[in-house]
Parts: sequence; C-alpha cells; structure tokens
Amino acid sequence: MNYHIALIPGDGIGPEIVAEARKVLDRIAEKYGHKFEYEELLLGGASIDATGVPLTDGTVAAAKKSDAVLMGSIGGDTTTSPWYKLAPELRPEAGLLKIRKELNLFANLRPAVLYDELKAACPLRDEIIGDGFDMLIMRELTGGLYFGERKTFEENGLTTAVDTLTYNENEIRRIAIRGFDVARKRRKKVTSVDKANVLDSSRLWRKVVQEVAADYPDVTLEHMLVDNCAMQLVKNPGQFDVILTENMFGDILSDEASMVTGSIGMLSSASLNDTKLGLYEPSHGSAPDIAGEGIANPIATILSAAMLLRYSLDLDQEADAVEAAVKQVLKEGYRTADIASEGCSPVGTVEMGDLIAERI
Amino acid sequence: MNYHIALIPGDGIGPEIVAEARKVLDRIAEKYGHKFEYEELLLGGASIDATGVPLTDGTVAAAKKSDAVLMGSIGGDTTTSPWYKLAPELRPEAGLLKIRKELNLFANLRPAVLYDELKAACPLRDEIIGDGFDMLIMRELTGGLYFGERKTFEENGLTTAVDTLTYNENEIRRIAIRGFDVARKRRKKVTSVDKANVLDSSRLWRKVVQEVAADYPDVTLEHMLVDNCAMQLVKNPGQFDVILTENMFGDILSDEASMVTGSIGMLSSASLNDTKLGLYEPSHGSAPDIAGEGIANPIATILSAAMLLRYSLDLDQEADAVEAAVKQVLKEGYRTADIASEGCSPVGTVEMGDLIAERI
Ligand SMILES: CC(C)[C@H](C(=O)O)[C@@H](O)C(=O)O
Ligand SMILES: CC(C)[C@H](C(=O)O)[C@@H](O)C(=O)O
Repeated sequence: MNYHIALIPGDGIGPEIVAEARKVLDRIAEKYGHKFEYEELLLGGASIDATGVPLTDGTVAAAKKSDAVLMGSIGGDTTTSPWYKLAPELRPEAGLLKIRKELNLFANLRPAVLYDELKAACPLRDEIIGDGFDMLIMRELTGGLYFGERKTFEENGLTTAVDTLTYNENEIRRIAIRGFDVARKRRKKVTSVDKANVLDSSRLWRKVVQEVAADYPDVTLEHMLVDNCAMQLVKNPGQFDVILTENMFGDILSDEASMVTGSIGMLSSASLNDTKLGLYEPSHGSAPDIAGEGIANPIATILSAAMLLRYSLDLDQEADAVEAAVKQVLKEGYRTADIASEGCSPVGTVEMGDLIAERI
Repeated sequence: MNYHIALIPGDGIGPEIVAEARKVLDRIAEKYGHKFEYEELLLGGASIDATGVPLTDGTVAAAKKSDAVLMGSIGGDTTTSPWYKLAPELRPEAGLLKIRKELNLFANLRPAVLYDELKAACPLRDEIIGDGFDMLIMRELTGGLYFGERKTFEENGLTTAVDTLTYNENEIRRIAIRGFDVARKRRKKVTSVDKANVLDSSRLWRKVVQEVAADYPDVTLEHMLVDNCAMQLVKNPGQFDVILTENMFGDILSDEASMVTGSIGMLSSASLNDTKLGLYEPSHGSAPDIAGEGIANPIATILSAAMLLRYSLDLDQEADAVEAAVKQVLKEGYRTADIASEGCSPVGTVEMGDLIAERI
C-alpha cells in the first residue's frame, strides 16, 4: 500500500538519526511491497532558522494530511539552552507544544525497557534490576499545567507569575482508556499516578480512572502518589507495567524511567490522537554536542518508526520485523558509543542503520 | 540554657522514633548542661482520632511558642491511604500543609547523603556512585501548586478541576537566599531546578534566582529543567551540592534523591521560617506496616534532632556531637533492619537509640 510519511529531521543529531530510520522504512517497503512517500517538514530550531517561527501553518497542515509523522529531535540542549529567554512566539508553546495541540496528540506512550544485552549500562545494581523491567508510561500530553492559562503581572508592586492546571473528566477518561487498553495487551497492570492527597485535579483524575477501571475487570489498577512513584522507579522498577499519569508528572517520571534503563538511546515514543495519525520520536534529546559526528545512536528513532508502523499504519508484522532486527543487532554485539561495552563491536550511526536494515 | 521543644510523635512508627530522639536530646542536655522541656502535640491521624481534625488551634499556638518542633511522621501509608477521599477538613491541607503555612515554614532542607558504610544499600552501581554523594534539596514549602486556589466545578456538563501555581518574586527571593547561604557553607554550587521552557512561574523563578546569585559571586549557579534533573539524579548524583527548587518539584525530586541513597531511614529534614523556629522530621513516612514492632530506624529522627540543635537552638557543637555519635555507631557495625547487611550487628529501635546516646 501507499503511505504518506512526514519527516521532521529537527535539530542537532535529528537529521542523522532520521536518515537511518528512513533507511529502515525503505527496507520494510521493499520487503513487504509498500510504498512510503516522504515529505520533510520543519519544526523547532530548524524552523526558526528558516521561517522565523518554530512551527508554521504549513507544517501543521502537511502533518495533518500525512498518515504519520516521524521526528528526530528538536531544540537545543535543554539544560543550557536559551529557550526560556525567548519571546513567546519562539518558545516550545509555539512549536512542540503547539503541534501536539493542533494534532490533538493527547496520548504519549513512552516505553522504558531494559534490554537483556544492555543490563550492564543500567545504573541500578543487579539485585534491583532482578528479572529486568519493561514498562510503558502513558502520559497525558495536551492538558494540565503545560497548556493552562498563564500570566505574569505586578501585584502590590511585586512581580507575580501564575500557571494553571486544569483537567476535565473527558480529558482524563480518554487517556485512562488508552492506558487500560494498552495494559490489556501487556501484563494487565495500571499504576495511576497523581497527587490526590493535595490537588483537586488529581482527585478528579483518581475518580475518573477508577470509573474507567470498572470496564476492565481483567486489569489491575493501583494508585500511587507522584512523590512515591519517583522513589519506586529507583527502588523497584520491575513492579511497573503501565504508568498512567497527567502531563507534568509524566514529563518528569518518563524521563526518570528512561534514565533508569541506562540506555535512553534505545527508547522510542509515540504521541497519538483518536484517529490513526501519530507523531513518533525518540525519547532522547537533540544532543547538539555530538551532532554531525556520525556517532549518535539511531535505534530510538528506528524503534519509533516501528511504533509508527504499528500504531498509525496497522502494519504489525512489519513493526515486529524492525524490532526483531534491532534485537538481532544487539545480540550480535554491535553498539554505538552511548551503549558501548567491552567485547562489543563499536559502530557509528550509519553503520548501525545499515546493520538493522540488512537484518530485515 | 533552657529550651522548650514541642514533640509531635505522630502516627505509625512516629512515637517510637521520637522517643529515641528525645533520649538523645536528654543525653545532650546532661552532657552540655542544657535543660530541654518537652510538650507533646497532636497532628495528623493522632489528632483526628483525639480531636476530629488533623490540626487544632491549640497545636498551632503551642508550636509557635516553642523554640522548635520535632516530629515523628504523620499520616498513613500514602500509597494506599484513604486520605484523598477524606473531606477537606481532614486532608493534609488542614494538617501538615496548614502547620507549614501557619508557622511560615517556607524553607524545607532535605539532605540526601550516602554514608560510606551504607554504600551497599544504594541501588546505584559503584561506578555511578563514584566518590559518593552528599546533596541538600532546598525546597520552597509554602507556595506553588500545593497552596494555590483550587476548585472543582461543572462546565458544559463536564466536571472540571483546577489547581493554581502562583509565585511572587519575594517568595522566590527568600528561598533562593536560603539556598545560596547554605551552599556557601557547603561546596558552593547551586542547581536551580524549574520548567522555564514552559511555565511562567518558572521563568520568574529563574530570573529572581539569577538576581540573587549576583550577591554570591563565590557560589556557582546552574539552571536545570525538572525533567532533566529527574534523570541526572539517577545518572550522576555526585554532581549536585544544593538543589534549589519550588514546592512540587522539590516534593518529587527530594523523594527521588532520598531513595537514590538507598537509606531513607537515615535522612533528616528541617522546615524553617525567618525566625529561629523550625519543624524537624525524618524524610521517611510513618511506615504503619512495622509500627509497634520496635524495628524502625530512629536515626533519621535523631539526625533531625541534630538539625534542630543546629538551626533553631544555635547549638552547633551539640549538633556535631549527635552526628558524630551516629557515624560512630554505623562504623561499629550496628544496623536496624532497613539498613542491615552481612557481618553487621542487627539492633532494634530502642537499642539503636541507646547506642547513639551512649556515644555522646
Ligand atoms: C520541550 C518540552 C516542552 C517537552 C515537554 O515537557 O513536554 C519535553 O520535555 C518533552 O517531554 O517532550
Ligand atoms: C503529605 C504531603 C502533603 C507532603 C507534601 O507533598 O508536601 C509530603 O509528601 C511531604 O513531602 O512532606
């Protein structure tokens, strides 16, 4: 079949890793007799450079018309980047956050998986790792504090800033349903994370999640406070299957979980709406420090392409093939620098892409 | 000198561990010629049982009149507790959060220290631990989302809940000053954590912290986004000295940091205002599952008493003596169950208190 895939190479290592994912998609097309048409779109820094803003109406329209969007990584190094100083029209709210809202991508799926071959890279001791872990964070992506009203003003001569955290029951219900649906296909456990001992939005969250759970008697639901969850991810990550949570808690916890695996260069993500359209991107950032060196790990992006095949194109077999090829390459001992270990064969970005494509 | 210390034994293991801290304080009084008068106050579950509410005006008034408050731990197991279902007048906002506000305890200091003797309990691998770590989280404790306006209402037939995150520049300035002051006495590095790429409150936070930093040219300031900080705590905890952050981020990150040490039973905390008055409590919870068994680790509470001596009573030498006694007992190999390891001598709550008191 013919599919139209929008590619957003993005900033930093983005273009390099997207090129490898495209190579893998082309190999899938060849092997399974599909046709993928690509269209390159701009977002983030690359878009600011070219158009003056991080996201144009043209990018939004093209993304909406596509079957799926595959993204590299956008923005600079978030630790030191000057983004926060930028004018509102240049901030994430005008770029990444805006495209999430425009495409209504309310469901962000972020797997945090420890691969057997990469256990040594995990920062946790073997006793804590136990039999390993394989969880999926289901983060609400278009509501809450990051999308609430905000303002900065003078009050009694003092500068005051306000952000607002709002959820209505429908916003909670639709993401909860996603969480339970995916748990049903996994180990049938949902850990819903909130701060229901303090926040009104969390109490509503807990109530609605509880209601949704009634339709999934085969799935176990547990509630956990966000501070406790931040601890449990370090203490016993193996306890989690699906973590279901709101936008900001999901932002923090999914990054923590990905670092707990020790191989963030391996972790994909999908942002979905209620149609087939989705935006797929690696969990890691744009790593400007190593951009252009040909050493970035393309696997997270390649696995994001696998999610794209699975969730947007309904090509499960093809997605399985990509995932199997990644596992095979790991088993054969090939490693990019970020997951290097003794006795393994060091490879660069392009070689890693080649190796995976060849094994499909 | 004479000091008036309010004791809040609290719930679960609270009474047991506070008794041991009191034993240690009595030994300090004896050795250094002070007189500590104690008054027991109710807060949390114990207060609800006795008075119907988690915090009475009487407790507030008595705490205000005291020189310092030493607390055990209040509330049930937060993972499964029914607190969130409670009527507003029984929630933390009417108990723990209220006493923080009433006493204006805006500065919450939470050390996350890895003791040399307890490295084996740390969930992180030795390579990640490196030379160990010793950080202090300076959490703003009376502003932000946990104290903002909140409401739940119907809108277009949908239940909607709103929480509000507000900070004014003064609230930020006073906690920033605390952070820089304490960093000056430590390794002279402040990591200010925010989400300035999205939130207005975080942009104001960053701006004010930057202004305060100008008065501390000897202290290095770095800014870090909260999602990145959640990763860095797992990846390289040794990089941190003082983490300065707002209420909710501090809630999540301080719990993560304490679990990263692997010995949360050792970690104290202090909540301070701009007078000498402070509230001191262990970082861990009330552990109702082991309450009354005499196996709880009293060290976090004993070290909280040391912070009380240091910050509220200005008794630095006495605080040093308590901390030295704790280190000595660890060196001699005594361990409660939570920090037990092979070849060490297992002891219970009371015995641990005795051992520490004897070494002062
Ligand atoms: C760049 C930022 C707005 C974004 C977020 O917090 O949502 C990023 O951290 C992410 O998690 O995708
Ligand atoms: C009980 C709760 C309100 C409290 C908080 O979040 O402040 C607790 O988690 C803490 O960190 O002291």
